[in-house]
Amino acid sequence: MNEFDNFNVERTETGIASLSIESESAMNSLNDGMTEELLWLGTELNEDDDVRCIVLRGSDGVFCAGGNITSFDEDSSAPAQLRRGASFLNNVVYQLKRGETPIVTGIDGPAVGAGFALALLGDITLVHEEAYLQYGYPGVGLTGDGSATYFLPHLVGLQEAKRIALLNERIPADEAAEIGLVTEVADDESFDDRLEELATSLATGPTKALGAVSRQLEEAYARQLSEQLADEAEQIATAATTDDYAEGVSAFKEKREPDFVGY
Amino acid sequence: MNEFDNFNVERTETGIASLSIESESAMNSLNDGMTEELLWLGTELNEDDDVRCIVLRGSDGVFCAGGNITSFDEDSSAPAQLRRGASFLNNVVYQLKRGETPIVTGIDGPAVGAGFALALLGDITLVHEEAYLQYGYPGVGLTGDGSATYFLPHLVGLQEAKRIALLNERIPADEAAEIGLVTEVADDESFDDRLEELATSLATGPTKALGAVSRQLEEAYARQLSEQLADEAEQIATAATTDDYAEGVSAFKEKREPDFVGY
Amino acid sequence: MNEFDNFNVERTETGIASLSIESESAMNSLNDGMTEELLWLGTELNEDDDVRCIVLRGSDGVFCAGGNITSFDEDSSAPAQLRRGASFLNNVVYQLKRGETPIVTGIDGPAVGAGFALALLGDITLVHEEAYLQYGYPGVGLTGDGSATYFLPHLVGLQEAKRIALLNERIPADEAAEIGLVTEVADDESFDDRLEELATSLATGPTKALGAVSRQLEEAYARQLSEQLADEAEQIATAATTDDYAEGVSAFKEKREPDFVGY
Repeated sequence: MNEFDNFNVERTETGIASLSIESESAMNSLNDGMTEELLWLGTELNEDDDVRCIVLRGSDGVFCAGGNITSFDEDSSAPAQLRRGASFLNNVVYQLKRGETPIVTGIDGPAVGAGFALALLGDITLVHEEAYLQYGYPGVGLTGDGSATYFLPHLVGLQEAKRIALLNERIPADEAAEIGLVTEVADDESFDDRLEELATSLATGPTKALGAVSRQLEEAYARQLSEQLADEAEQIATAATTDDYAEGVSAFKEKREPDFVGY
Repeated sequence: MNEFDNFNVERTETGIASLSIESESAMNSLNDGMTEELLWLGTELNEDDDVRCIVLRGSDGVFCAGGNITSFDEDSSAPAQLRRGASFLNNVVYQLKRGETPIVTGIDGPAVGAGFALALLGDITLVHEEAYLQYGYPGVGLTGDGSATYFLPHLVGLQEAKRIALLNERIPADEAAEIGLVTEVADDESFDDRLEELATSLATGPTKALGAVSRQLEEAYARQLSEQLADEAEQIATAATTDDYAEGVSAFKEKREPDFVGY
Repeated sequence: MNEFDNFNVERTETGIASLSIESESAMNSLNDGMTEELLWLGTELNEDDDVRCIVLRGSDGVFCAGGNITSFDEDSSAPAQLRRGASFLNNVVYQLKRGETPIVTGIDGPAVGAGFALALLGDITLVHEEAYLQYGYPGVGLTGDGSATYFLPHLVGLQEAKRIALLNERIPADEAAEIGLVTEVADDESFDDRLEELATSLATGPTKALGAVSRQLEEAYARQLSEQLADEAEQIATAATTDDYAEGVSAFKEKREPDFVGY
């Protein structure tokens, strides 16, 4: 895998690909190069059967401060600039999510605006006790992109979602975990270990089934019961074609732990 | 603005239009005149750029006791009467919500049946410590209208929604806040101040962006990720056409607080 | 009503049909005969106006351990076997839910895999303090069926849903109630009484309205506001055709408790 200008990428023998945001712009903010690199990384890693969990985290006490507002146009070129940037980021998010490799985000510092959106991409999300999340966009008169308006209400319900987005307050780590915006909080000492533990837990699972379930749980909301049931029969039949299914059933019959390979 | 038979309307310099329900029928219950007035008010206020937040509250310790059941037919004319009343109320709710002016509800007393529905229209909802909410409809063999069946599950999740609707118990203020049915509780002394504070917080924001985000968060549930992402690019480009966007970016670059005008 | 190989069925004068799973296979696991019987029971009971609440519970300290994995194929016939089994179970679930008789589940022991799915079918769910729920499917490399992927996120939100499904841990009774996966916990001594109390509460209500509201609350997620409002006018007009509506309005006017008959 190549070197990147905005990410430090590490891969483990256990199938974890860890992307640390080390942005060239201030406060780990998004820039065009970073979005391009994330598209490249997301598509490559999702096609690689050896990658069984993607970890996305920040660096130096900042997860991601969002768009690089100092570069935003203030004149009539702004709508086109914003549409271009949002549509590109949105494609990155879609490819990252719909590749179906499980994702863990390690929110190791402030996550604001587009950084808030990236933080919520994790199937499992760990937040550092001193980090916070903030919706951010209304602070500059904007709405949201990068799936910020999609995952927020699904995670915490409509009441909390509106409070978080419309009042635009900082959500401390403890509160984020309490309302279900993130999965867990960890203190400074345990953060890295717990992040690896969660990633390993997913990376040793039946990757195809986990990826499919993650997608199904998201898609369930916009489907009526009959539609979701039809999808369940499709997905379970597909899962039954994998080596991991055969291994799971064998292990069950032999009363031992399964050893999943990810396909 | 005209005088009304069922509402006391006050407007502030700060862009808040406050509607206190003072119904001509008992217990602040709904009547046809009240619904007509609310349609008139909702459509007028939503078209008025000087209105940046609508507050809906009760009076004399009652928010709204729901439909005026003493006027309900019990014979074969009932289905047509109910369909007419529900469809009219539903249109009022739709116009009120989809005008996209942020709404705060001040639930300053019992909110039952259609009153329960109106209480949940707020993007931000403040409940008086001695108030309660009750789904109400099954008490007279009915289902729900005025968007009661829409906002309830989105706010609290399906489990709580069913408990609240099917067991039809009174939900005290504290419990309502705990499960996310409302945003906050306030005691008697602080209620009016906190209501104004919340309304002011929304009324000083970038109104168009806040209204769009509120709608997007609601619409996210019935959309798949790809659809919501497409909408995000649309809405953020639209937001970038507003004066509030230019002001927000200027203020950020100049490291000062933005002064939003609402368009 | 006939005798069954996998259920003990009891009916009360008060309109409760109680189905205790007493499966012929180990740990109250699903088998083809049991699914067939549940389809027969669900369709019969839903057509019977005297049945105003269905209770589904386990026996001997086990609710349902899921599919009978020892009978699962491990070779190339597995996908067809799984698709067949899932599609049949899914139809049972659909007919059971969409018959619109209110359902209470009594989770009186472990509920895993397809048992997890059945446990969540209740409009109201009571869990024994020593029982647990576990998503289960990924343990054998599978995704989910029987509406497991539908009700889980609707009940607890997307964050908890992913944690429960992807990490596949046992969810103890207390935690299940706290996060909204179930309605209530009961200790051993009070479990049967509380289960009957909840069932009676639904069985004495306006059955048609309760069934319609249950369905509406589920369907609300996949509908935009305008669509749900249109449905509300339909459903409330239909409810107004019932004897229970007329009784409810009479009782209200006469300031007495209504005596609903269920139609």
